[in-house]
Amino acid sequence: MIVGTVLGHVWATQKDPTLEGLRFLVVQPMDANGQNTAETIVAVDPMGAGIGERVLVVFGRAARHVIGKGHDIGFQTAVAAIIDRMELKDRSIGPHVDQDES
Amino acid sequence: MIVGTVLGHVWATQKDPTLEGLRFLVVQPMDANGQNTAETIVAVDPMGAGIGERVLVVFGRAARHVIGKGHDIGFQTAVAAIIDRMELKDRSIGPHVDQDES
Amino acid sequence: MIVGTVLGHVWATQKDPTLEGLRFLVVQPMDANGQNTAETIVAVDPMGAGIGERVLVVFGRAARHVIGKGHDIGFQTAVAAIIDRMELKDRSIGPHVDQDES
Amino acid sequence: MIVGTVLGHVWATQKDPTLEGLRFLVVQPMDANGQNTAETIVAVDPMGAGIGERVLVVFGRAARHVIGKGHDIGFQTAVAAIIDRMELKDRSIGPHVDQDES
Amino acid sequence: MIVGTVLGHVWATQKDPTLEGLRFLVVQPMDANGQNTAETIVAVDPMGAGIGERVLVVFGRAARHVIGKGHDIGFQTAVAAIIDRMELKDRSIGPHVDQDES
Repeated sequence: MIVGTVLGHVWATQKDPTLEGLRFLVVQPMDANGQNTAETIVAVDPMGAGIGERVLVVFGRAARHVIGKGHDIGFQTAVAAIIDRMELKDRSIGPHVDQDES
Repeated sequence: MIVGTVLGHVWATQKDPTLEGLRFLVVQPMDANGQNTAETIVAVDPMGAGIGERVLVVFGRAARHVIGKGHDIGFQTAVAAIIDRMELKDRSIGPHVDQDES
Repeated sequence: MIVGTVLGHVWATQKDPTLEGLRFLVVQPMDANGQNTAETIVAVDPMGAGIGERVLVVFGRAARHVIGKGHDIGFQTAVAAIIDRMELKDRSIGPHVDQDES
Repeated sequence: MIVGTVLGHVWATQKDPTLEGLRFLVVQPMDANGQNTAETIVAVDPMGAGIGERVLVVFGRAARHVIGKGHDIGFQTAVAAIIDRMELKDRSIGPHVDQDES
Repeated sequence: MIVGTVLGHVWATQKDPTLEGLRFLVVQPMDANGQNTAETIVAVDPMGAGIGERVLVVFGRAARHVIGKGHDIGFQTAVAAIIDRMELKDRSIGPHVDQDES
């Protein structure tokens, strides 16, 4: 599992039928300084997270559990939680990425 | 799941029989600036994506679902969608990689 | 499996119901010099590890075993042990990250 | 799945019994410029790929399928195909790594 | 699967009961030049590999097979073989890391 920041949305018309009606987010993993890394992953979001919000992203069987449509589906990454707060040794991080972090 | 750009095609004569008749793409993952990373992955494509198109790539059980040939197959990565549009905070990204991005 | 250092805690109100009542840690993987890498992962902790402690983090089925709530859960990373000591060729590393390492 | 170049062979006398009689290759993943990365992986090769040949490497269940010895085996990476040709946007890549690429 | 060098040992008193009585090694993956990377992984070792020895490390189901304690265990990485020799294009690598490589 990782914590990442919602960077944006993805739309696709031509897709596996099991992707129909789902919300796809682009998420940037967070590094140990609370900054975003250059990498991106795509996650199905059943929670309605907004751009700039920090989310907990899970993979594989855990993602299929979160989505709740069984195991025969064409995706394997999902948002399992929207982060309220993180305490990282010497700093507290709120739910949104601050202006000066973007 | 990741978003990547189709970089090209792979052909192989000597292969596991379950790979027969499938289309194999080389895909480059996208970073948080919408640029391609140096890494490459290979994905089976049941959707007919063209070179330069952005695609959603899935792994493992999700990839086997997308291909629809059961679980006893010799590959584990597939294109699950062809991207129409992405909205990333301050930019909109269309389905094709632009000239100046290549 | 990796060894990492507990960097802090994560709280989320809006989450998959199976995450209710669990303790979520942010962990930084350790490199070959005993230093922390920039990457972070999130792990469920059933052991009560404190900030700065080194832990053994496991993934997937092993993590579900450690948590003991079956396989239909929305997370896939867990602390399986709190490290007492590591002997790495030319150095001995105790359970806590030293001041000069932080 | 990834494309990589066969870098060499591995021999081991002391090993899990299910590894007996198999051919183990060291493979270097290919980056988006057709160059080899610094990383290495080890794959069981049922196809007889030679040094310098490009191969398609698969993982997990797909690798177990390719080897065909059931699911209770002590390895999880295999060569699923020997590449004949790759077309990557502006270049064609043959089955062998050229002299000037090595 | 990867080849890595045994860097040292890990001890933990507080741990999942299924980890009791097992030997945990810290292993450094090898890059394409036969050098160790900065990354570390932890593997259960049923083979008795010593510090500086090169080992074949496997993950997930393959690791559970190698350990032979069923699938309900709290770890997922294991040593499947101790390497005798590697032939990498232009060099031969023996079982131990040489002085000048350490």
